[in-house]
Amino acid sequence: MERARLATVDDADVLAELLHDFNTEFGAPTPGAPLIAASLRDLLAAEATFAFLAGSPAAGMGLVTLRPNVWYDGPVALLDELYVVPDRRGHGIGTAMIELLMTECRAREVRLIEINVDESDVDVQRFYRRHGFSDVDPDSGERASYFLHQLG
Amino acid sequence: MERARLATVDDADVLAELLHDFNTEFGAPTPGAPLIAASLRDLLAAEATFAFLAGSPAAGMGLVTLRPNVWYDGPVALLDELYVVPDRRGHGIGTAMIELLMTECRAREVRLIEINVDESDVDVQRFYRRHGFSDVDPDSGERASYFLHQLG
Repeated sequence: MERARLATVDDADVLAELLHDFNTEFGAPTPGAPLIAASLRDLLAAEATFAFLAGSPAAGMGLVTLRPNVWYDGPVALLDELYVVPDRRGHGIGTAMIELLMTECRAREVRLIEINVDESDVDVQRFYRRHGFSDVDPDSGERASYFLHQLG
Repeated sequence: MERARLATVDDADVLAELLHDFNTEFGAPTPGAPLIAASLRDLLAAEATFAFLAGSPAAGMGLVTLRPNVWYDGPVALLDELYVVPDRRGHGIGTAMIELLMTECRAREVRLIEINVDESDVDVQRFYRRHGFSDVDPDSGERASYFLHQLG
């Protein structure tokens, strides 16, 4: 089982390389690792973002943002990013990071963790379901779709 | 056309009554308006939450939370709640609040606004589409489902 650990500001370059690789692999735009690293240094120095790394050398990363919510005393966590490099998948790196996510969220008094998962990505959905996530809100009994609006 | 305005801490009681009515109407749990108001007073005094009211007397409310994101210089906004009381629907109150949402987000340098919409709620989905929201990510071309995990 691979180990995961909480990242610090000093890990910004490694995290940024993995995020850049993540977006490149899936055809998403990326400003390049140096700009991502600069953004991460700011974010990780503040309270509302944390990140983790797993594997040695680093083969997986995760990025979490926190925000307030009127229904919960503690913050709500959104798992913005979770990535394992292709040739290290299937060795428990993702699971190690999800377990660290749970531990860190409990320590921060988070009672709700959210993720937006592509509808076509059934393997990723299976992974999250196995770790206790659901696409059905227990209060409403409803599934929800993610809507977005980009401002120019 | 009804007017919408940004709420202040002094509006916490009115906002809370509407939020309580919202949850009651849709069968969602609510801790009651006084506890909601106490939470709102804390949230609205800080930077990461803003709210609006519309109508006179108030017939609609919205609640927005902001969080950082590695891909955007400014914060990302989530429209957590948007409610119009039943007997005042169909008079542009929701539209007035969405237009204020856009104005306030631009003023805060928000480039991405998000909403999670129940899959069965086609009227609500139509409302958001009409206001420029999409359930297809322009980068990935994918629809995404909202997954959640509540921690005990």
